[in-house]
Amino acid sequence: MRKIVAVDAGGTSSRAVVLEASGDCRGFGRAGAGNPTAVGIEAAVEALGLAVARALGDRLGDTDAESLVVIALAGAETPEFVQRLGSRFAGLGLGGTVAIEPDLLGTFCSGTALEHGYAVIAGTGAIAARVSDGRIHTVRGGSGWLLGDTGSGFWIGHLVARTVVAALDGIGRPTALTGLLLEATGIERTSAKHRGRAEELTRLEHALYALQPVELARFAPLAFEAVDDPVGREILDAAAEGIARILAAAVQTDVSGAVVLGGSVLAAGMERAPAIFTHRLRAAAGDAQLIPVADGVVGAAVLALRRLGIRVDARLHRHLTGEIDRARGEAVAQ
Amino acid sequence: MRKIVAVDAGGTSSRAVVLEASGDCRGFGRAGAGNPTAVGIEAAVEALGLAVARALGDRLGDTDAESLVVIALAGAETPEFVQRLGSRFAGLGLGGTVAIEPDLLGTFCSGTALEHGYAVIAGTGAIAARVSDGRIHTVRGGSGWLLGDTGSGFWIGHLVARTVVAALDGIGRPTALTGLLLEATGIERTSAKHRGRAEELTRLEHALYALQPVELARFAPLAFEAVDDPVGREILDAAAEGIARILAAAVQTDVSGAVVLGGSVLAAGMERAPAIFTHRLRAAAGDAQLIPVADGVVGAAVLALRRLGIRVDARLHRHLTGEIDRARGEAVAQ
Repeated sequence: MRKIVAVDAGGTSSRAVVLEASGDCRGFGRAGAGNPTAVGIEAAVEALGLAVARALGDRLGDTDAESLVVIALAGAETPEFVQRLGSRFAGLGLGGTVAIEPDLLGTFCSGTALEHGYAVIAGTGAIAARVSDGRIHTVRGGSGWLLGDTGSGFWIGHLVARTVVAALDGIGRPTALTGLLLEATGIERTSAKHRGRAEELTRLEHALYALQPVELARFAPLAFEAVDDPVGREILDAAAEGIARILAAAVQTDVSGAVVLGGSVLAAGMERAPAIFTHRLRAAAGDAQLIPVADGVVGAAVLALRRLGIRVDARLHRHLTGEIDRARGEAVAQ
Repeated sequence: MRKIVAVDAGGTSSRAVVLEASGDCRGFGRAGAGNPTAVGIEAAVEALGLAVARALGDRLGDTDAESLVVIALAGAETPEFVQRLGSRFAGLGLGGTVAIEPDLLGTFCSGTALEHGYAVIAGTGAIAARVSDGRIHTVRGGSGWLLGDTGSGFWIGHLVARTVVAALDGIGRPTALTGLLLEATGIERTSAKHRGRAEELTRLEHALYALQPVELARFAPLAFEAVDDPVGREILDAAAEGIARILAAAVQTDVSGAVVLGGSVLAAGMERAPAIFTHRLRAAAGDAQLIPVADGVVGAAVLALRRLGIRVDARLHRHLTGEIDRARGEAVAQ
């Protein structure tokens, strides 16, 4: 039996599954960040090797020259990365093809068996694509933390930080986010002032400037905790609007097919602030079905089977999804 | 005669004047950045020493143990900076007192002989203060490029960059800023696309991510060039609103006295977009007089004379301003 492996290589964690051509799942493995742009080639190769080894479990063994590994990955891969990844997988007995697919396509195919529609990912970054004939056609957004990515985790966390700094300085409105951010940064509440400036403010600024700017993304969850606070709600609404604008830019004249939603911000948004996120996304996507997905591993599996000439229809897609969910649950339980 | 020297130590350049107790100006000198937070202690001491040496001209000579040097400086000074500055000035024959005053007070006193009102500086950062009895009473804003400074040069330049990236990506409206920013970054216009993405966009992102984030401030002047473009105008209006909010937070129940405006953004704003800036600042400052100033060197001179017990009234303030303008012009002409 030829070995079929599908991998979702993320910026914070990676997931791998071992599949049969029937869509049955024989193993699930998880490891750290597998994106070389995020963590460097060496760490990414190590994590992806570990995830795959865990998914293979006791199936590690003789080399299969016909094996297929499909990896869904954000950003451009370098020849060095591909070559080192091939060596690592060969060491696991996977001597055949290694194919890298865009994470946007992995996300799209995780949500639907259709071959056209849209994928939107809002997590570390914010990016959208139109999918046509099963391939990525147009990409919008994804310009990074400094120049784009409106609605991403960094964008929300940064706005939370700026909003609280302004509130403590008397420039912005009081907000429940202040207490949440001071708690998250370990700063004790005090009414002490120094030269007419709140001590809390000075301490918060020191704590936040000690971070790398992109680390402000860690405060994005506070906005979802403060969804009932008017200021927190405004931040989430502005994030949803920003994400919807990126999607709208990818939309062609006719919106049809599925709109698949990936990434931590959209997962939290559809779960904790569904009214806000659905409203904003509907404005861009019309009546197309909105399908949130946890990650791109089902999509990587779909792409692997298609590469072998297997037609993935709605029935097989449901089977794959169920199988991978089951294997994921068993892997968590161990 | 005791030597009286006043210095405005800025983040990009510094200015020094040598004064008589009458307010007559005997010399003007200019040098590079004199703010130790911006360029480090060594470079700042070197620049301030050079500016003062140039202002002294052929008055360099015997040590005056009664000399007074007053320096207007943003941020907190360290004991090491003060000590090294004292040594440097002693080497120039200035063996007496060296006093450091807040740049906000230098700016305020550059614009008025009054001892109460407000100072607003929007340049590298954005900050405002209430002045009461000739001293800084309350400070608002100045939280730096990442956490605050709405309306500062960085904030405007960053928004220009984000706006053009969004426009090139089809997410934002077309704007005259696009041509200006591509020209400023040396990127040739092309309609070429790669994977449905404008080549210009990819090149611009590479060029901008090659900079330090704070260097985006260099693109702030483009917004003033595009004041007749709807998008450029919106950016300037948002900047003016942000600056006005910082001022509003410093305002006590009664607005009275002068509102002195310093920094490159407010200078450009009052000259090139006066309707926008006056409208927004009036909302915060009411009918108080808005007084733009070029820098804080007149204010440092006012503070030096006051420290010697000399009363600086409107007449002496006008005399000082005229004298320093004349000396500045002569120094430029040389």
